[in-house]
Amino acid sequence: MGPGEGATPEVCVVARALGEKIARAGWVLLTGGRNVGVMRAATVGAHQAGGLTIGILPEATPAAAVPELDIVIPTGLGQARNVINVLASQVVVGCGWGAGTTSELALAIKFGKPVVLLEIPLVAQTFFQHLSPQVHLAQTPDEVISYISTRLTTDSQSG
Amino acid sequence: MGPGEGATPEVCVVARALGEKIARAGWVLLTGGRNVGVMRAATVGAHQAGGLTIGILPEATPAAAVPELDIVIPTGLGQARNVINVLASQVVVGCGWGAGTTSELALAIKFGKPVVLLEIPLVAQTFFQHLSPQVHLAQTPDEVISYISTRLTTDSQSG
Amino acid sequence: MGPGEGATPEVCVVARALGEKIARAGWVLLTGGRNVGVMRAATVGAHQAGGLTIGILPEATPAAAVPELDIVIPTGLGQARNVINVLASQVVVGCGWGAGTTSELALAIKFGKPVVLLEIPLVAQTFFQHLSPQVHLAQTPDEVISYISTRLTTDSQSG
Amino acid sequence: MGPGEGATPEVCVVARALGEKIARAGWVLLTGGRNVGVMRAATVGAHQAGGLTIGILPEATPAAAVPELDIVIPTGLGQARNVINVLASQVVVGCGWGAGTTSELALAIKFGKPVVLLEIPLVAQTFFQHLSPQVHLAQTPDEVISYISTRLTTDSQSG
Repeated sequence: MGPGEGATPEVCVVARALGEKIARAGWVLLTGGRNVGVMRAATVGAHQAGGLTIGILPEATPAAAVPELDIVIPTGLGQARNVINVLASQVVVGCGWGAGTTSELALAIKFGKPVVLLEIPLVAQTFFQHLSPQVHLAQTPDEVISYISTRLTTDSQSG
Repeated sequence: MGPGEGATPEVCVVARALGEKIARAGWVLLTGGRNVGVMRAATVGAHQAGGLTIGILPEATPAAAVPELDIVIPTGLGQARNVINVLASQVVVGCGWGAGTTSELALAIKFGKPVVLLEIPLVAQTFFQHLSPQVHLAQTPDEVISYISTRLTTDSQSG
Repeated sequence: MGPGEGATPEVCVVARALGEKIARAGWVLLTGGRNVGVMRAATVGAHQAGGLTIGILPEATPAAAVPELDIVIPTGLGQARNVINVLASQVVVGCGWGAGTTSELALAIKFGKPVVLLEIPLVAQTFFQHLSPQVHLAQTPDEVISYISTRLTTDSQSG
Repeated sequence: MGPGEGATPEVCVVARALGEKIARAGWVLLTGGRNVGVMRAATVGAHQAGGLTIGILPEATPAAAVPELDIVIPTGLGQARNVINVLASQVVVGCGWGAGTTSELALAIKFGKPVVLLEIPLVAQTFFQHLSPQVHLAQTPDEVISYISTRLTTDSQSG
């Protein structure tokens, strides 16, 4: 989960690397699916590494979707689709920061999903860790991958 | 789209054959994802034929999903997820009949999606063709496949 | 519940009379809230008779709402708001007919809500009564009011 | 908007006073409608001061609603109903703090709604003002009322 139009070029570079690593780990990448910002960068990274990519769009048609997506789910629900993004994910990664991303991370915490944050300013790190001590901070995409591995193993053993 | 608990064994046999043929045609099968009735039968058929299967669940967790699904999207939206089933489909097939299926077919007509009906009583055939003259009736899964082929070719040429 | 752009002038006259009678009975009128067809006619009728009126809009802003509405709830959910129309109603009245109205009536039957139909063609009457024997047919707005009275009394006694 | 089960008694006292003042100002109070925490306290305050109160519930039935509500809208959408809470409000007041409230305030900022915060810790104040410089901080219910008055006047003049 990450910003669209508001994403900086630096965050997009990180998001693309993260998408590649998620695909190489053999996991499915799910994003908000719009052809901009972190959604676009992560999808392109995962696609080029041969991964399966899913986009859950706010619009009722696929017109605004990242062209590289394997599976496009138009919802027509606007920002209410943020709930689906979170519920359909086993681990929620916040990469970059904005109002829409905040709503998704807050919902992930509410639903008890594992949350890991990357490329997020100190004020937001402090805020989310105050909201839930379980929120994990990562400095690099590799640290995100390492955290997801741990969580998927844990959930699999306890589940 | 088709009934869950209310599906007859006969309709489920047809749904399973339809799922197989959709997979063999190289298309993705999307259903409401619950492990019962037409959703289960069509998914199992497509899965055993090597197809990609997606389920859009009304619940917030994947607990009630067909185990054979490749991609499970829990939504927590209840019957509001019917809108997503329709919007995410290129062609909407009604197999069997009930209140939930009726809401999906009516939405498909409202959104202008191609609709084809199978294993549906005469009163419902008459009703849906009254609602939209574009609704197509099929007698067998093969006729459904044939209709979908035509529609995907047409849309691709005009699109 | 009833058609918007597709409503005939005759159906709108009946919808306006129905809105007036609902308000005079002391009940709240809830519609899809768009300023057209049955939604507009029923709201204006109820408003002029001094009733409280609520509109649940598909859009994210109130711009398209009937101006006479007391309470406007923009949802941004598109046709997924049909589910709310039904769940928020104690009795669902179908006045006139179309694809959107069909989706609402089918959901009302699925949710076990009392349903009464007015100004609906024979093919649709037959269809909905086949879908649920509980669906009630009315010939006039007064018959609708009489049916609602019975249902509210019954529910109150059993509830 | 404010926490349910997680609301402290102190926040509930403030929420009740705020509800009273909103009603006395002649405005409609809209909350998430559940019979707990800030939703319950604000509704009871507004109701006892003679105001009109609306609750938009996550559940599909009114069973969990505050009994004092005038209008109950069950949605069956779970946390996706948070979007409606925000879109249906002219001004969004955050009273107290939690994950659900955070998702609502973030959506309000995304939709460009006026936002005012009360009874919220410093870390959250800093966070939301970082997210949008337009977010207003209030120390008392009277300051909230004063801010809403200003915003409703401004919007009415420019609208």
